Amino acid sequence: MFNIVLFNPQIPPNTGNIGRLCVNAGAKLHIVKPIGFDISQKAVKRAGLDYWDKLDLKVWESVEEFLKNVDTNRCFFATTKTKTPYFEKKYKKGDYFIFGSETKGIDEKILNQYKENNITIPMTNEGRSLNLAVSCGIILYEAIRQNFKDFSW
Amino acid sequence: MFNIVLFNPQIPPNTGNIGRLCVNAGAKLHIVKPIGFDISQKAVKRAGLDYWDKLDLKVWESVEEFLKNVDTNRCFFATTKTKTPYFEKKYKKGDYFIFGSETKGIDEKILNQYKENNITIPMTNEGRSLNLAVSCGIILYEAIRQNFKDFSW
Repeated sequence: MFNIVLFNPQIPPNTGNIGRLCVNAGAKLHIVKPIGFDISQKAVKRAGLDYWDKLDLKVWESVEEFLKNVDTNRCFFATTKTKTPYFEKKYKKGDYFIFGSETKGIDEKILNQYKENNITIPMTNEGRSLNLAVSCGIILYEAIRQNFKDFSW
Repeated sequence: MFNIVLFNPQIPPNTGNIGRLCVNAGAKLHIVKPIGFDISQKAVKRAGLDYWDKLDLKVWESVEEFLKNVDTNRCFFATTKTKTPYFEKKYKKGDYFIFGSETKGIDEKILNQYKENNITIPMTNEGRSLNLAVSCGIILYEAIRQNFKDFSW
């Protein structure tokens, strides 16, 4: 129903967990190279439990290739560098939720290019960032909540 | 603003990640014994990054002790055994979101005792369960969304 997109993920258990999330939420996972590990690696599969084989997965060669081939009007870029809470946007079936690497986030140049579609998960002043899989879950399930009539479970 | 409650958690990195989530979301974390590891253990702290020391944490000796000391009308029990989506409830400041262990979930006897307050994260038929930290994030941020006027960030 929705698309989760990971630009250059670095930590296998996060990607595994996000695969598990996608299967449970009926979402497709896009992994955009370069990545910090081998996707077939044990740690990915272990964190994804037995879900990894059920996953609707697409691997892209680069961020540029990905952005050239999708409707960027329906891409939403998760970042700590905006003040627009993710739940203030209206999502619809097929939307893409894009997350940067655990260490660097999404490249600032790309964020600026799609400023209108930057979204953030509000955090207290004590906070700084959430685990990548947790962030994906929060935003993906808000989109599901908004479109729940189309969710089959 | 809210309370996350883990009954008998078993996997240190999950608890660490949930600690990180709580600091970022301004929530208090309750850990209810028996637990499958030492809370001071390295793996908890590592997964919680440098957040663990900022965490508002309370440890309870048993599920019974916890339930005797809180307003159970404001406790919501996350389980795959109900058909009530978590976003159909109205949450308010101070509510408790309760999660069972990664292996067993919440004891069925307790679920039945508080049936009206059982909630679930809808999952596709392909799915079965989400990572514990991801589940906590999804439900906690729905409560924050509903009460966002009171969230300071």
